[in-house]
Amino acid sequence: MTTSAYQELTRHWSRLHRFQHLHAMANWDRAAMMPTRGSEARAAALAEMESLLHGLRTEPRLARLLEQAEQESLDDAARSNLREIRRDWKDSNALPPALVEASSLASSRCEHAWRAQRPANDWAGFVVNLREVVALARQEARFLADSNGLSLYDALMDRYEPGMTSAEVSRVFGDLQTWLPSLVRQVRDEQAREPVIEPSGPFAKAAQRALSLEVMTLLGFDFEAGRLDESAHPFSGGVPEDTRLTTRYREDDFLQGLMGTIHETGHARYEQNLPREALGQPIARARSMAIHESQSLSFEMQLGRSDGFIARVAPLLVARFGMQPAFAVGNLQRLLTRVEPGLIRVDADELTYPAHVILRFGIEKRLIDGEVEVDDIPALWDEGMASLLDLDTRGNFKDGCMQDVHWGAGLFGYFPCYTLGAMYAAQWFAAIRRGRPDLDARVAAGDFTPVFDWLRANIWQQASRWTTAELAERASGEQLNPSHFRRHLEARYLGSGRP
Amino acid sequence: MTTSAYQELTRHWSRLHRFQHLHAMANWDRAAMMPTRGSEARAAALAEMESLLHGLRTEPRLARLLEQAEQESLDDAARSNLREIRRDWKDSNALPPALVEASSLASSRCEHAWRAQRPANDWAGFVVNLREVVALARQEARFLADSNGLSLYDALMDRYEPGMTSAEVSRVFGDLQTWLPSLVRQVRDEQAREPVIEPSGPFAKAAQRALSLEVMTLLGFDFEAGRLDESAHPFSGGVPEDTRLTTRYREDDFLQGLMGTIHETGHARYEQNLPREALGQPIARARSMAIHESQSLSFEMQLGRSDGFIARVAPLLVARFGMQPAFAVGNLQRLLTRVEPGLIRVDADELTYPAHVILRFGIEKRLIDGEVEVDDIPALWDEGMASLLDLDTRGNFKDGCMQDVHWGAGLFGYFPCYTLGAMYAAQWFAAIRRGRPDLDARVAAGDFTPVFDWLRANIWQQASRWTTAELAERASGEQLNPSHFRRHLEARYLGSGRP
Repeated sequence: MTTSAYQELTRHWSRLHRFQHLHAMANWDRAAMMPTRGSEARAAALAEMESLLHGLRTEPRLARLLEQAEQESLDDAARSNLREIRRDWKDSNALPPALVEASSLASSRCEHAWRAQRPANDWAGFVVNLREVVALARQEARFLADSNGLSLYDALMDRYEPGMTSAEVSRVFGDLQTWLPSLVRQVRDEQAREPVIEPSGPFAKAAQRALSLEVMTLLGFDFEAGRLDESAHPFSGGVPEDTRLTTRYREDDFLQGLMGTIHETGHARYEQNLPREALGQPIARARSMAIHESQSLSFEMQLGRSDGFIARVAPLLVARFGMQPAFAVGNLQRLLTRVEPGLIRVDADELTYPAHVILRFGIEKRLIDGEVEVDDIPALWDEGMASLLDLDTRGNFKDGCMQDVHWGAGLFGYFPCYTLGAMYAAQWFAAIRRGRPDLDARVAAGDFTPVFDWLRANIWQQASRWTTAELAERASGEQLNPSHFRRHLEARYLGSGRP
Repeated sequence: MTTSAYQELTRHWSRLHRFQHLHAMANWDRAAMMPTRGSEARAAALAEMESLLHGLRTEPRLARLLEQAEQESLDDAARSNLREIRRDWKDSNALPPALVEASSLASSRCEHAWRAQRPANDWAGFVVNLREVVALARQEARFLADSNGLSLYDALMDRYEPGMTSAEVSRVFGDLQTWLPSLVRQVRDEQAREPVIEPSGPFAKAAQRALSLEVMTLLGFDFEAGRLDESAHPFSGGVPEDTRLTTRYREDDFLQGLMGTIHETGHARYEQNLPREALGQPIARARSMAIHESQSLSFEMQLGRSDGFIARVAPLLVARFGMQPAFAVGNLQRLLTRVEPGLIRVDADELTYPAHVILRFGIEKRLIDGEVEVDDIPALWDEGMASLLDLDTRGNFKDGCMQDVHWGAGLFGYFPCYTLGAMYAAQWFAAIRRGRPDLDARVAAGDFTPVFDWLRANIWQQASRWTTAELAERASGEQLNPSHFRRHLEARYLGSGRP
């Protein structure tokens, strides 16, 4: 029996999947389990694996196999898989290995130094490393743009959000800016008249962990195929067969840890419900960063801040922490939907979060396209924060342009995915509600299965079978449409009704 | 600058070390962290890595590089390293890949089925798989014997205990049998007159874990370079840079978990104190299984059951579990040195443990050498247990010849290492005592540093610099000598004095 070129490619990608398993687990372990002195050996082991993976993705025979496979007679699913294999191959082969290594070293150095420079508000120190990271990112963008015909910034963004362009991002962010600032003002005026009671701690970590596990169970997490642990920065890692998520617990504020758990559970359920039969093949991978974020935000924002969900969770809080006035359902609802412009993106509420992303998108796009330089960032930041959120960030680098790890780590083109994800999540819930007008009643009765069933069928099980545009179209009848996000925010925040 | 063949080999072995890091961590995770449904993907990932490692160890160019390196001018340490590199290479290249794969599959199948067959006492089911495992082990032994000139059984044992022969094992085990049975009888007669109070549980797991961590701290474990977790079977895993040990807690018996922790801490300190400068090279690996076991037993038996150590730990028990009569120091000493022949090797006391090993060594040697067959095992077992420990095991396969995982997993030649390790441990302590006549006084005062200092200098830091015989000679002035084990047991168990 002869092996087709396509079969040979799928075997190769299955092998990559198995090696990536070991990489993903060692990476999770590094954040969640590893003692400090294991760090150097771990970095060396991960780098060795990355080099092996890169070598496997750039084997010269693959170019020929791809061409041959594209001539073979394949069914539609195989053809989609082949499209994704080529994309993976193209991304890996577009960059000279020396550039990949130089970028990786520069980002590691910059990120490592940033950990100390940020608390010290040391922009002058940070900028030295950041200049190098940006110079290398621009070179990468040039190579990728030559390979895929996109503009410089779009070529970088395409790695996280294939098919998305900065023109499209500008269009939807532009739409947002026509209505979001006035909505924020209106909501803040209304909320100024609403009293909110703060929960009173301390909240023991063990009780917070028990609560997180209960809420994950409510949200359908499969504990036989994953775990919850702690790390400095919450994330969802591991492999689809065994998803490892983390949160962190602050004894003075249980909501941060709890909402972190709910967010990561959204990511995790996507991974846990990718189609098993094709696992290991690119067609069975999560579609993109924005679609992934649409899952975590479906859980954290759409479902997790809905009246029905809050009512379901309130008694769990009382059981774990004892009764206190803050745990009244109405108060929890107000607490979880309070709008307050702030300096820090990760602490932002649902309404002001997009402003943080719009600011970053505007700066990083011009930075990569060469229209502005690294030294222009602080002034652009101050100007953007003043106009978008009316906040003064002058001289405050650590809570300003140095607050995120992304740029130092060379992750240009990633930020838009957060807000695209929020918009997709609103679009999914609008579609669910169209099909099931009783959705809010079901959720209010503590039954979340309509949400899970829809996401499973329309997003999770579709994985990378379609392009992102096709996926959105098939799931919700249209491509990305920010009006659903607007309607969701208005319904929730303008008193009229709170889904 | 040209690269010598030796340098090229060391680079290759450093690369192996980094890949083994990922394998070791995924293996530890499988036992200590992994949820059940992650098992299939993990097995596939580990097998993929094993195949990569085997491929790297059998690259054709290595034969030439080894020959070239052996002609190069090298210092003594490099020459020792090259000896170990060749041993590693030889072991990997002696076996045809198809045989390695067949053995691995047969052992996995046999071990997997054994997990259900053992509790069901199903010898008839187990024997079917075991026949295949033994047939393949004999083939492996034949290939290895052809490659290293040893007898069949010795060729297998050499993988765990290089340089040791069954003639030498027979000699020291023969010596043991001249005095151990009468010592056991004498001690049991004496102990029959000693009342022992059993600790009264339950002992909460959280308190047991806290106790384990305290005792590990007393024993010098570096928590910045390792962790303690739980697994079904305690083990010491991970990498020298980050050792991961496990224990298990029974709420009705804290001693099992505690002594398991102490045992594994001995293994772990060996790994944590291997010479850092050569880490990644075979010369910096632990010497052998018997030497490794001599470290765990130095901790568990020599130090861990000494009067001084018990007196140091007693107040920790009171602090964690509250006062009870069983925690009086004298009673704890009697409890930890009680001698009682039993069916199960892993539950055996210090005095009757060797009988379990002697029994298994006698059977497995004849099995591999082709003098007996798998179907003869139960009769040989019954006969051996009757003559060695005066116990009846007829028809009781699950607590008899089916109790260990080793044979089903194809680990022939491993059992002797347990008792060789116990003898080496006694030999080390005799050497420490010769150099420091105040040893027992120091330990009684709660100062264990003389033990750690001697082990660090003479065993841990020596790693694989020498052959095992040379190591023993340099450390203690002589090769393996069972008379130290005898003197240790007589001193501890015959009332005269109890080190």
